[in-house]
Amino acid sequence: MASTSPEPAAAAETDGSIQIRRLELADRERGFVSLLSQLSTCPDLTASEFATRFAELAAHGDDHVILVAEDPSAPERQILATGCLFVERKFLRGGGKVGHVEDVVVDAAARGRGLGLRVVRRLVEIAREAGCYKVILDCTPELRAYYAKCGFVEKGVQMAVYF
Amino acid sequence: MASTSPEPAAAAETDGSIQIRRLELADRERGFVSLLSQLSTCPDLTASEFATRFAELAAHGDDHVILVAEDPSAPERQILATGCLFVERKFLRGGGKVGHVEDVVVDAAARGRGLGLRVVRRLVEIAREAGCYKVILDCTPELRAYYAKCGFVEKGVQMAVYF
Repeated sequence: MASTSPEPAAAAETDGSIQIRRLELADRERGFVSLLSQLSTCPDLTASEFATRFAELAAHGDDHVILVAEDPSAPERQILATGCLFVERKFLRGGGKVGHVEDVVVDAAARGRGLGLRVVRRLVEIAREAGCYKVILDCTPELRAYYAKCGFVEKGVQMAVYF
Repeated sequence: MASTSPEPAAAAETDGSIQIRRLELADRERGFVSLLSQLSTCPDLTASEFATRFAELAAHGDDHVILVAEDPSAPERQILATGCLFVERKFLRGGGKVGHVEDVVVDAAARGRGLGLRVVRRLVEIAREAGCYKVILDCTPELRAYYAKCGFVEKGVQMAVYF
């Protein structure tokens, strides 16, 4: 019966061959920047520029986490998906913390395998473990159902000024 | 003619008696935390807790700015409005930066004087000066027109998970 068969996305969730781990400096050579270019304008960074930004973000410790998905058994170990969490410390909520999820993208050739959901769920879990009282993200209306799979509900509108 | 009279909000924008400045440690005694309680759950912080969070945020330098509005000539110098900007550094956009505006609130007794708009416009200007390629914020749909006065346009939906 179709109803007892795991759906492709659900099956991918348990795909053990793909590892979710924190970004490493060497991931520049594994296509991390070109993966981001599938999300936004993203000119390549020199090794030096990449290392500088990497160090700036690493200085935030566990308040800034970038996760990547890779297949460690693949020869080139290309990065297949990524997502970012940064933790904002506030004065309200008794000195509370809010997790912000940003820059979630899955390589076009790796979509439909649940990798983005695995990354986002892990980011949400990291935020919970860090003591955040909530995690928020902004997305297009078309992605509401996608993020609902990770427990997100619509809360408001995102406004922006572009320079 | 009514059409040549400045509107109340426009007049308030040039209200020189109110100063917009960065948050100081002493602002705990000037009602900063109770002002935030008009926005969200906000139990009071001890002087020590406040100082700890203040120092954590100050460590981010110009990447984390809290502005407050006060009347320096008022005996108690109560904080009348506040808003926060933090700058997120990214790998995309050539190592670009995004400004996030958070925790904008105007004291109920001081609304209608344009203080919130002054704070937000200054935060946007700080983000521009910091080299951000955009500034974003989340709000309720009712506040779209308010933020449009500061140049914001609707870009997407905000999603959240509450723990």
